[in-house]
Amino acid sequence: MSTQSQQPQPQEPLTFPSHHASLIQPYLPPPPSVSSSSSSSSTTTATPFPHVTLTYAHSLDAALSLAPGVRTTLSGPQSKAMTHFLRAHHDGILVGAGTAVADDPGLNSRLVSPRPVVLDPRARWDVHEGSRVVVLAREGKGLGPWVLVGSRTVVDEGRRRVLEAVGGRYIPLEAKGERGRFKWEDVLRVLKGEGLESVMVEGGGEVINSLLAPPENRFVGSVIATIAPTWLGQGGVVVSPPRTAGEDGKPAPVRLTDVTWCPLGEDVVLCGRISR
Amino acid sequence: MSTQSQQPQPQEPLTFPSHHASLIQPYLPPPPSVSSSSSSSSTTTATPFPHVTLTYAHSLDAALSLAPGVRTTLSGPQSKAMTHFLRAHHDGILVGAGTAVADDPGLNSRLVSPRPVVLDPRARWDVHEGSRVVVLAREGKGLGPWVLVGSRTVVDEGRRRVLEAVGGRYIPLEAKGERGRFKWEDVLRVLKGEGLESVMVEGGGEVINSLLAPPENRFVGSVIATIAPTWLGQGGVVVSPPRTAGEDGKPAPVRLTDVTWCPLGEDVVLCGRISR
Ligand SMILES: NC(=O)c1ccc[n+]([C@@H]2O[C@H](COP(=O)([O-])OP(=O)(O)OC[C@H]3O[C@@H](n4cnc5c(N)ncnc54)[C@H](OP(=O)(O)O)[C@@H]3O)[C@@H](O)[C@H]2O)c1
Ligand SMILES: NC(=O)c1ccc[n+]([C@@H]2O[C@H](COP(=O)([O-])OP(=O)(O)OC[C@H]3O[C@@H](n4cnc5c(N)ncnc54)[C@H](OP(=O)(O)O)[C@@H]3O)[C@@H](O)[C@H]2O)c1
Repeated sequence: MSTQSQQPQPQEPLTFPSHHASLIQPYLPPPPSVSSSSSSSSTTTATPFPHVTLTYAHSLDAALSLAPGVRTTLSGPQSKAMTHFLRAHHDGILVGAGTAVADDPGLNSRLVSPRPVVLDPRARWDVHEGSRVVVLAREGKGLGPWVLVGSRTVVDEGRRRVLEAVGGRYIPLEAKGERGRFKWEDVLRVLKGEGLESVMVEGGGEVINSLLAPPENRFVGSVIATIAPTWLGQGGVVVSPPRTAGEDGKPAPVRLTDVTWCPLGEDVVLCGRISR
Repeated sequence: MSTQSQQPQPQEPLTFPSHHASLIQPYLPPPPSVSSSSSSSSTTTATPFPHVTLTYAHSLDAALSLAPGVRTTLSGPQSKAMTHFLRAHHDGILVGAGTAVADDPGLNSRLVSPRPVVLDPRARWDVHEGSRVVVLAREGKGLGPWVLVGSRTVVDEGRRRVLEAVGGRYIPLEAKGERGRFKWEDVLRVLKGEGLESVMVEGGGEVINSLLAPPENRFVGSVIATIAPTWLGQGGVVVSPPRTAGEDGKPAPVRLTDVTWCPLGEDVVLCGRISR
């Protein structure tokens, strides 16, 4: 996805400090224009999967939100600028149906907007004229969303028209995973096939946890997580992968390597790669 | 507790970088010798409670350990040096019976050792000649532990002799809290009365969570928490206070203020004070 159709394109109005940007840069995929034209990135483009960056903000007790339906402000104002910066460096931005339903997220960037992607095997997200992502796309401030639905899921025709009117669409995909879920391999292959060289996975809890656990975490290129100095208390939507066992049968923690901690206001941004 | 009897006193053999020490310094209580002699610390000594520092290490999913009985290495080697540095700046170091039973912890410092304190209302910690804290005290590498037990709890005479032989003892205290627990107010008043101007609370999960929740968190002077870039996975002993409601009835997160993030090896050290 080397070109973006949206207008107008503001002149980087963001106040994300270049000091921070340079610390985070090594964890970003090659910029879209480079990855789709330069030969130096041929190793990237040769894989059947896009670069996946996991990005989200959580509390000290690892909660993304107070409860599934509750939008919860966690990180400080600087972090908003970072989100827009990160989004502008990815071709796609992916969330689960839970987040789409609960948050009505905008999924755009004040810079270059990525393609919003929603994992919605049962088509339960009621996308309509007033959905933020649709409004933003209509105003030229974002792209129309792609909604991945089960290959046998019947989709409401009104919703389909809403999506297609703003350049979005439903993409049917066979749900080969447990409990009617997609396999990440299938999701990422489709997105790469549709031209996305890089995808930022923003949430929510189920999506992140399923990607953090091995063997799925082999798809994660980097993690950029903001931690806010707050405890939401027991009962939140928590980032914690299912416990898995190593070869010795003992619990095998998932470790990050190549770690950078970058204080940002009262928060800290953790950058790293999954250790293998 | 202005003097320490243990011998020998190594000449600060620690490799805790002075750069880090200076970042953490503002979150420490005044050094023991100052707090018990200098008039400048009269505001501290005037309160009936010691300065409480909460210190522990947890994973990205907020776990102190894989399970209650499982000692889990989380933080890197630099963090060990920090623990000894922190312990040397406190008169007491407190853990719950769960940690004493599960970990057989040493609770000393290679520098100046604090007084080990164990909250053990039912006297379930089987302290014996081979307990690490007893061995260290016998070797002059730590102090004999104080074990706070319920005022009506019957204590085994053999254990009492073990404690007293190394300068430790049982301290009876009425358990006025729920489920036979002590009230923090009572615990801290007793410790201050026994001469501790500062107490470092190291764990485990129950002890930390009960101190983080309001109104008990009014006793917490500062938090110094190490976060390791690892997910232990669901099912660990987690730092997350019980959910409490604010005046408006909505969930009220517990926030830190005056925050410093200090990268230490692959970990980060979070310093802050509870926001009120
Ligand atoms: N702080 C942050 O950075 C942040 C970011 C995003 C979201 N959030 C919060 O996260 C919460 C929502 O999290 P959530 O866990 O309830 O929902 P979620 O992860 O957003 O969505 C989960 C749903 O996505 C669908 N899905 C499809 N394929 C999947 C796959 N392979 N793996 C996992 N899910 C798949 C499933 O829908 P079906 O059940 O229909 O199969 C599943 O129920 C909200 O409260 C939101 O505010 C916070
Ligand atoms: N990573 C770290 O920094 C770190 C540090 C310390 C411990 N840990 C880990 O934490 C785990 C143990 O945690 P835990 O939650 O099981 O036990 P814990 O918090 O160490 O001990 C809880 C027990 O302390 C007693 N207690 C007395 N007064 C109390 C009060 N006011 N509030 C709370 N407890 C009081 C109670 O004993 P009764 O039940 O007999 O009443 C309670 O069951 C271990 O796996 C250990 O390795 C990790």
